[in-house]
Amino acid sequence: MNKNITSQTLSRLPLYFNYLISLPESRKSGHISATAIAEALGLNDVQVRKDLASVSNGGRPKVGYPTSELIGDIGKFLGFANHDGVIVVGMGNFGRAMLENRSFADYGFEVVGGFDCDEKLVGTEINGKPVRNVSELGSFCRERNIQIGIITVPEAAAQEVCNLMTGAGIKYILNFAPVHLSAPAGVAVHNENISLTLAMLARKTDVGDIK
Amino acid sequence: MNKNITSQTLSRLPLYFNYLISLPESRKSGHISATAIAEALGLNDVQVRKDLASVSNGGRPKVGYPTSELIGDIGKFLGFANHDGVIVVGMGNFGRAMLENRSFADYGFEVVGGFDCDEKLVGTEINGKPVRNVSELGSFCRERNIQIGIITVPEAAAQEVCNLMTGAGIKYILNFAPVHLSAPAGVAVHNENISLTLAMLARKTDVGDIK
Repeated sequence: MNKNITSQTLSRLPLYFNYLISLPESRKSGHISATAIAEALGLNDVQVRKDLASVSNGGRPKVGYPTSELIGDIGKFLGFANHDGVIVVGMGNFGRAMLENRSFADYGFEVVGGFDCDEKLVGTEINGKPVRNVSELGSFCRERNIQIGIITVPEAAAQEVCNLMTGAGIKYILNFAPVHLSAPAGVAVHNENISLTLAMLARKTDVGDIK
Repeated sequence: MNKNITSQTLSRLPLYFNYLISLPESRKSGHISATAIAEALGLNDVQVRKDLASVSNGGRPKVGYPTSELIGDIGKFLGFANHDGVIVVGMGNFGRAMLENRSFADYGFEVVGGFDCDEKLVGTEINGKPVRNVSELGSFCRERNIQIGIITVPEAAAQEVCNLMTGAGIKYILNFAPVHLSAPAGVAVHNENISLTLAMLARKTDVGDIK
């Protein structure tokens, strides 16, 4: 293993992790070769072999890597073996989906609860996770040192929720409201715009036709 | 206007569009300068001015662009003024959120309906959009020439839904199931992995510390 890894390798590791974690259980219990991964992802196999060797010692010539060990090694390297607490604000359908998303655990995230301002929802549970009043957000996050928040409220409330989160010490915000958020220095905000993703996917060809 | 636009400009246009569309209504009715956009997005203002001039004639020195006209010009250029029909398969919370997402319309997409295999949901409406049985997917898409599908079913069903979609002539698939999908040549699949997005956001600093 080589800790002196390049940023190119680093950018590809999540691709491998993502591919491996999505394999059916039957294949996870077996072995997988760098060549097979390269083929599945359309990458150069020499490159993939080198990348994997830099984070895992488990590879054997002609056999490959024990798949689950490789998942563990890449995940550990990327910090996916953490148990980082995450809160979700906005218990509409999207927020509820976030509380039910089982794949967060694969990446070392634990959604510890939801928040809403609707009194009908506060006190209920979604997927075994309690829904609290947004007024409790600050004390909740500070007590538990929560650093990651997901915003799934309507557009008009998103900046206010962002301010609440940063005031509570949250450092990383994933925002699904279709609005540009301002956050203080030291807070990383990722605006996830599903409409834009769809536009880039479905119009790539048209756009590509323009020179 | 200059149709001979570079791919660098092209890659930035959605950023401008996204920023402008997310402004409050009060600002959309006014003017905006290339400099203001450059500052908000952390880009070079000469570059932004050049980019905007290549798709819109509305700019005036010292005044800027009428914001709504600029949104229209960029959107038209990128194909966001289309009315492309989209179907969503899987009416869990995530799928329901897709049927309720108002921002798709800003990007020229119209979600025409949802599909599920649960008989209790089939025949109902979500946000005024009918939920149909997946068995009708093929005929529905072919009759209306639907080319875009969103997959929000559980992992285990995602490949089957992908096959159904491609069999029905769908050319662009946005997949939210945490599984790697195989699709025939000519079909573009974008696997949107929210856990991975969160990991990249929240672990960027840690990852950056490794050289």
